[in-house]
Amino acid sequence: MTGFVPADAGFEARTRASFARQGVMAFIGATLERVEPGLVEIALAFKPELSQQHGFFHAGIISTIADSAGGYAGFTLFPPEAGVLTVEFKIHLLAAADGEQAIALGRVVRSGRTLTVCTLDAYVEKAGRRTHCATGTQTLMTLVGRAGVRD
Amino acid sequence: MTGFVPADAGFEARTRASFARQGVMAFIGATLERVEPGLVEIALAFKPELSQQHGFFHAGIISTIADSAGGYAGFTLFPPEAGVLTVEFKIHLLAAADGEQAIALGRVVRSGRTLTVCTLDAYVEKAGRRTHCATGTQTLMTLVGRAGVRD
Amino acid sequence: MTGFVPADAGFEARTRASFARQGVMAFIGATLERVEPGLVEIALAFKPELSQQHGFFHAGIISTIADSAGGYAGFTLFPPEAGVLTVEFKIHLLAAADGEQAIALGRVVRSGRTLTVCTLDAYVEKAGRRTHCATGTQTLMTLVGRAGVRD
Amino acid sequence: MTGFVPADAGFEARTRASFARQGVMAFIGATLERVEPGLVEIALAFKPELSQQHGFFHAGIISTIADSAGGYAGFTLFPPEAGVLTVEFKIHLLAAADGEQAIALGRVVRSGRTLTVCTLDAYVEKAGRRTHCATGTQTLMTLVGRAGVRD
Repeated sequence: MTGFVPADAGFEARTRASFARQGVMAFIGATLERVEPGLVEIALAFKPELSQQHGFFHAGIISTIADSAGGYAGFTLFPPEAGVLTVEFKIHLLAAADGEQAIALGRVVRSGRTLTVCTLDAYVEKAGRRTHCATGTQTLMTLVGRAGVRD
Repeated sequence: MTGFVPADAGFEARTRASFARQGVMAFIGATLERVEPGLVEIALAFKPELSQQHGFFHAGIISTIADSAGGYAGFTLFPPEAGVLTVEFKIHLLAAADGEQAIALGRVVRSGRTLTVCTLDAYVEKAGRRTHCATGTQTLMTLVGRAGVRD
Repeated sequence: MTGFVPADAGFEARTRASFARQGVMAFIGATLERVEPGLVEIALAFKPELSQQHGFFHAGIISTIADSAGGYAGFTLFPPEAGVLTVEFKIHLLAAADGEQAIALGRVVRSGRTLTVCTLDAYVEKAGRRTHCATGTQTLMTLVGRAGVRD
Repeated sequence: MTGFVPADAGFEARTRASFARQGVMAFIGATLERVEPGLVEIALAFKPELSQQHGFFHAGIISTIADSAGGYAGFTLFPPEAGVLTVEFKIHLLAAADGEQAIALGRVVRSGRTLTVCTLDAYVEKAGRRTHCATGTQTLMTLVGRAGVRD
């Protein structure tokens, strides 16, 4: 329970439909797990094609799922016709992203009419053990009335 | 000419070898263009597999090449036995990453014994016109004597 | 209870002594409230000398107490001879800092040998109501053996 | 010459008037030096009241003048009736802020209708030598039609 009340009762279907249009999510193999008001979780299985030079998840790939998790966490609270745009994000790499699976969690901290602020966290799971491998914050913008450009 | 003097004359070969070990670079199709002391440029052709929901480059993919560009810009100045670790980065998405190709440029601002600070910039090119689509900053850490974990 | 075990049993006295040497804290009127392992709280009463152009706390002043709160949160976990240095921080201004008092809370997320990552939060209190006015993250560095330069 | 064309020919007087309303600037002793389209410079003489525990400028004070320099750099390009709000900023502390004077420079990178992105840089001067002590980036928001709240 996140405490946020979505403006659009159809937020989950709308979020899943937009996620399905992100070509990169299918390409890397990311899946949309939890979709709640103000909270989204994305999972990603490791494969060597996602690695940096030491064989762990690349920081950019962790950032890719974290950015989408935060973006869609904000999106769940938007009115039905609005699109979402990442204004900026920052991410700390807390530990080597060494795991069989990565999980990204985006959570809304402040939901405004124009701007939304989220926290981003990522975890890796290896042999049943979960490590907090990244944390950060993100600013999103709500875009209204620019259908076709942002949804 | 960047004004930095590399500690290792073989910095370019060392940087190219490490880049070649990043599985994700081959997977997305990124190529290492410029490798100079304290400056690295990476190019990436667009394909639908790299897109967000509007068909442009996903912010995370732009971040992936920007993070590697900055990381390797720092790496060019490291001693031969040292590895590089991204501590954190922040990126602003200045414009839609709508282009046939993206270019990421990492440049060292401050090169310290333990920490290095870089600026990250990304551009998209479309029909011969270049747009500055992202800018940010990054902290890197030099890792010495942990061969096998970080190189 | 923060769950962190300090390396130095005298962490509180050491933290309070360092805080007392920050000239700016006395100048603006900030006081050190909670000092726990990995957590520090600083309070600051409003005065017009701390304002931006609309009469609220200036974002830089909120950042000043937030940076010190995070820095000292990390410092509580350092060995006795070590100094603390802020590597970087980022702060989101979530709401106008309109209040009679501001509270900054720094909390350690990851405590490493060389680097520590904290979250920073600030609140304003007005007529008995507390508003979350800022949130962010910070990287700190532990400095050992450079007495006189950093403590 | 910054290349930006201000929307309001009276940008300099408007910027100086707003700066004069920031109580904290007079309190710490900061002065508005350059005011150009998209670029603002602020100077601040050292005094012990601005110090951290080692006697240098506190990172929060450097951030205070950097935040105002960026905020007013954006403000120079705003329409006459608009106010400015800092959405977020990030700052790297590149070197000890050990000097007789600090200089903060804010520069607009992207000027949009709603959001503006700036770079922030700070320098300290000591015995005639200038050191680049901080760098960062900032997001600003243009506020229109909320007179009395933001100007």
